[in-house]
Amino acid sequence: MTEQNRKYLEERLTFWNQITKEEQEILIQNTAVVKYTQGQNIYDAQQECIGVLLIKSGELRTYILSEEGKEVTLYRLSDDDVCILSASCILKNITFDVHVDAEKDTEILLINSSVFSALSQKNIYVEAFSLRLTADRFSDVMWAMEQILFMSFDRRLAIFLLDEMAKMGMDTLPFTHEQIAKYVGSAREVVSRMLKYFAKEGMVELSRGSIKIIDRQKLKKLL
Amino acid sequence: MTEQNRKYLEERLTFWNQITKEEQEILIQNTAVVKYTQGQNIYDAQQECIGVLLIKSGELRTYILSEEGKEVTLYRLSDDDVCILSASCILKNITFDVHVDAEKDTEILLINSSVFSALSQKNIYVEAFSLRLTADRFSDVMWAMEQILFMSFDRRLAIFLLDEMAKMGMDTLPFTHEQIAKYVGSAREVVSRMLKYFAKEGMVELSRGSIKIIDRQKLKKLL
Repeated sequence: MTEQNRKYLEERLTFWNQITKEEQEILIQNTAVVKYTQGQNIYDAQQECIGVLLIKSGELRTYILSEEGKEVTLYRLSDDDVCILSASCILKNITFDVHVDAEKDTEILLINSSVFSALSQKNIYVEAFSLRLTADRFSDVMWAMEQILFMSFDRRLAIFLLDEMAKMGMDTLPFTHEQIAKYVGSAREVVSRMLKYFAKEGMVELSRGSIKIIDRQKLKKLL
Repeated sequence: MTEQNRKYLEERLTFWNQITKEEQEILIQNTAVVKYTQGQNIYDAQQECIGVLLIKSGELRTYILSEEGKEVTLYRLSDDDVCILSASCILKNITFDVHVDAEKDTEILLINSSVFSALSQKNIYVEAFSLRLTADRFSDVMWAMEQILFMSFDRRLAIFLLDEMAKMGMDTLPFTHEQIAKYVGSAREVVSRMLKYFAKEGMVELSRGSIKIIDRQKLKKLL
């Protein structure tokens, strides 16, 4: 492991000074640099718990999936976030399964789950670290749940488009209606209908496989 | 505080032996016996954080509420459960608001939130205790969310129970969870969990090897 990655580990793992030098060494030796390409599935319910993911750069999307294949996005993590639910086997109190995909090319420091688990059982600071991250994700999920259950769909879609526009730094978003439906947890038909409405209102322009935002102010009024 | 309530506190608070005698005394002195009557609102977003609730008997329902007044039940807690989200101000990582109502007459030991918060900041075992409870509730919420968003299994099970009731012409169905799982094409654990949920909601009564339907109307509402 490079000196830079060691430093990164030390910075992200806030319990670093509460474990022994020996334990630090074990963690370092059981951490790997892993790269995922855009669209790759990183973790799902069928897989063994893969470990704690420290995201150096890129983006991960966590979602749930119904038996019928319906996806609902719970939250996204990006640079310098830590993904803990990919190591949910460590967390006795977490009894549900999620899926994690790379949404962009992503570079990760992956800490082996059994090593992390052993440390977490021995050291309360390590356990508390995982649990605090879990509580953060709980807050993210509650936010998503409120969006999905309470918000009218035009607002949800407007938020999604404006968020993506800001994140990607461009007016034209390279998404199909199908993809948007997945991201916002809706059906393609519902998305298409609302996008057509937005286009009629002069807020967006639709082309095959992309949406151009042409009146940001008007879209913002929906928020 | 009665000796019995002291004992109860000691049993429920798994960090009891990791705090000083003095801190134990402070906790005892800042814990009150509180009774709520069925239907009473205990906690909502507008209120100050009221504290940690140790449920001696009764039932609390935690839910979210939209601006338009739509309610979504997240989970229910009953005898010997601990309600932590009523003290969410203690938890830096929890950024959402919930409502808590008494669903039955309920007796509670209420630990003052600022006293608990101070202790939680000083003692990692107290913090981890709160966070573990939070992770339990996260699991409950994910379960509820899957039911609501994917909405299939509760319907399927309700349909099965109502059909069998009609076919057999009786309220009490002589099925094990295992048998039902076979009939509806699911796993025994999934059936058991949903039946427990139906029981908590007052729709059925569970005994060894049989299920009695006690509120057919409520069950029908799931269809």
